[in-house]
Amino acid sequence: MKQVFDFIDANRENAIEALKKLASQPSVAATGEGIKDCACLVKEMLEQIGANPKIYDIGDGSPVVAGEIKSKRNSGKTVLFYNHYDVQPPQPLELWETPPFVPTIKDGKMYGRGVADDKAELTGRLKLTEAFLKVTEDVPCNFKFLFEGEEEVGSVHLAEYSRKYPEIFAADAVIWEFGGVDPKERPIVNLGVKGILYVQLTAMNATTDAHSSLGAIVENPAWRLVGALNTLKKDERILIRGWYNDVRPFTKKELNLIEAAPYEAAALKKELGIKRFIKDMDVRQAKMALAGKPTCTICGLNSGYTGAGSKTVLPRDAFAKIDFRLVPDQDPDVLVRKLRAHLTRHGYRDVKVTYSEGEKAKRTSSDERIAINARDAAWEVYEKKPVIQVSSAGTGPMFVLKAPCVAIGGGYSSSKAHAPNENVRLDLFVKGMKWVASTVDKFVDEGSPRH
Amino acid sequence: MKQVFDFIDANRENAIEALKKLASQPSVAATGEGIKDCACLVKEMLEQIGANPKIYDIGDGSPVVAGEIKSKRNSGKTVLFYNHYDVQPPQPLELWETPPFVPTIKDGKMYGRGVADDKAELTGRLKLTEAFLKVTEDVPCNFKFLFEGEEEVGSVHLAEYSRKYPEIFAADAVIWEFGGVDPKERPIVNLGVKGILYVQLTAMNATTDAHSSLGAIVENPAWRLVGALNTLKKDERILIRGWYNDVRPFTKKELNLIEAAPYEAAALKKELGIKRFIKDMDVRQAKMALAGKPTCTICGLNSGYTGAGSKTVLPRDAFAKIDFRLVPDQDPDVLVRKLRAHLTRHGYRDVKVTYSEGEKAKRTSSDERIAINARDAAWEVYEKKPVIQVSSAGTGPMFVLKAPCVAIGGGYSSSKAHAPNENVRLDLFVKGMKWVASTVDKFVDEGSPRH
Repeated sequence: MKQVFDFIDANRENAIEALKKLASQPSVAATGEGIKDCACLVKEMLEQIGANPKIYDIGDGSPVVAGEIKSKRNSGKTVLFYNHYDVQPPQPLELWETPPFVPTIKDGKMYGRGVADDKAELTGRLKLTEAFLKVTEDVPCNFKFLFEGEEEVGSVHLAEYSRKYPEIFAADAVIWEFGGVDPKERPIVNLGVKGILYVQLTAMNATTDAHSSLGAIVENPAWRLVGALNTLKKDERILIRGWYNDVRPFTKKELNLIEAAPYEAAALKKELGIKRFIKDMDVRQAKMALAGKPTCTICGLNSGYTGAGSKTVLPRDAFAKIDFRLVPDQDPDVLVRKLRAHLTRHGYRDVKVTYSEGEKAKRTSSDERIAINARDAAWEVYEKKPVIQVSSAGTGPMFVLKAPCVAIGGGYSSSKAHAPNENVRLDLFVKGMKWVASTVDKFVDEGSPRH
Repeated sequence: MKQVFDFIDANRENAIEALKKLASQPSVAATGEGIKDCACLVKEMLEQIGANPKIYDIGDGSPVVAGEIKSKRNSGKTVLFYNHYDVQPPQPLELWETPPFVPTIKDGKMYGRGVADDKAELTGRLKLTEAFLKVTEDVPCNFKFLFEGEEEVGSVHLAEYSRKYPEIFAADAVIWEFGGVDPKERPIVNLGVKGILYVQLTAMNATTDAHSSLGAIVENPAWRLVGALNTLKKDERILIRGWYNDVRPFTKKELNLIEAAPYEAAALKKELGIKRFIKDMDVRQAKMALAGKPTCTICGLNSGYTGAGSKTVLPRDAFAKIDFRLVPDQDPDVLVRKLRAHLTRHGYRDVKVTYSEGEKAKRTSSDERIAINARDAAWEVYEKKPVIQVSSAGTGPMFVLKAPCVAIGGGYSSSKAHAPNENVRLDLFVKGMKWVASTVDKFVDEGSPRH
């Protein structure tokens, strides 16, 4: 690996230039801006390393770009790199210190929309592949690249792609799109994500807003919504019948890993400006909740007049956007039916449920070979004990990939992904490439391929 | 009165021109646009009828314009005309069929922002005064004109004006700023208004929005708000301790008047596209509720992400705008303290209450001379039995005026006040002038002045 690492170091500027070019190309999934152009650019990048890329399309939405490089010496095993070329919208623009699509280097960081999430990771994986090819004239096992363009809008078509094009999803292990170090610069080997059920609850009554003096006789959908919401959760427990039926408890090993993992609770509290967590929970309880607690979070509330001052209006409708985070083996398709039945049972049949996003949770065992490889490689590159994270509190379409997944990479906790002034630290960009390179290098052929 | 009515008919076009000129002058209290210019224009209009107007100012906000004409033959009694020259903002502009500040006549109606609320009434009262002066060289009793410029933002300084300039408020009777006919063209003699307590409840936690995956450990202010709201009202009854203590029951006479009054429930249901009222109440119950039920209405709800699709955010704050309508003798200053105590008692001390508007209710007895005059004049002008309305469901600063008030005028139920395409029917504009003229003509001196 020494030579591969040296190549990565020697070609640092070249990798930075490639990232700069990719980050200059807008690719906003929410609006479609630049998506098709970015897919072409990513295809070009895959062509440059000889990965024989193809663009896969299933009608609406952003295309998937996928390619493969066969290993000469270890063609029995395949690692898949899952990344995404789409980015969050750059708004609010006025809070950016540099233009979001003019990647700008300052103090060892590159600023721009999408640089952290996920263009540095995507670029890094191509550049580490190039390093293997230049130094060894081979890759350590088969490399597959699966780059989607809808991750920021809930990977709405990814499961459909996996059914239509199973060959581009088949692998023995997956390197997930994100990863990096914690606030104390410890590398995190992340092994899972929570699932999600995202819904909108809408209450409606009149066809038009009315004068609020009519509140004496005309039903108010905002009150209906408040009443319906109030039946969902009490004392931090979700009250929907059967909600916890399919929750798989932590294994003894998972519990031990969670206990052992450090968590920078004080740093988070400081960042958010809060004094305590829910119910004054301690660090251990917080870690357990982040990794394994099903949640029900109001992400948005809207009804009637929300401007400055007072306006006397009786709203025609009211809605809440709600994010339920799920754990293995909860199924969003099952749970949305339980939610609807719950509302009906409580007399809120009129409150409409719009199901906008559903993804299952996924966890990979820490005993999986790729997990062990990632941990060992982290020691090597960072010279620090890695943190093994049983599950992120966040969500991604990991469940679509059947093989074991590890989420590792070059990120850090102040990258402001999804926010203005998103950035990557260039030192970690390079270290992340080495970490991933070393992880896959250890993933040698040890038996018959699973795919 | 015949000659006065003839003069009003003969000078119809002149009155329409005066209204057109006034409605061409923007005067948006919410933004301040055109307010000072409009005050000058109104002063000029008062000068033209010899009312010796003055502009009264107490610092910030819109000035009050007031004037007076003494009666030669009945100087012992004074009628005050309360109107306002400010208007609602014209937004949403795209829904207007003609420009809001270019008054446009079409099919016997004049369209424009503020034509109905309240510039036709204001203009009409000056024009009927002119008719008296031209025909009789006198006015039937002393006329006072009190024109404020903040009615559309809750008459925030009117009580303060009344303390600082009591002389411009003193009168024996008041002709209120609005009035007109119901959907069946019956004239309505309105004798009261509800009060209001308008507050914003705000829950806050972090200093910044967070990723919603943190819902497992970080308290969500939207849930706090929903919980707090849910303690306020149940089954259409306000649960705040002592809320109903000062509610004055209807008198036998008021009950009879409410029973006797027609109410076009079907027309309202059709307009709003609703099938039923709250709890399936019937017309009698609806009339009682509109005139005398204290209400608690959510006018606005806001938290986190409210755009299209899904965004996974844990909001930093959440607020609700709430309009409590009050009845005699509830006092908003007392009730806001009860609301705060209620939230504290229920564990929601952290939910902030911002008190933005408070007005008491007011009712005038149907036995008052001015009420009887208005009823008799309505028969005369419309040749129909008038509807006596004990109280409007809406609110206005009537309580600031100590004298008996009647709300009569030239409005109708489809005038779209506060909405795009606001309009006045020109036939009713003229009839309303006659109605008011005849009402004040009957208000002759019968004793010593009260002021």
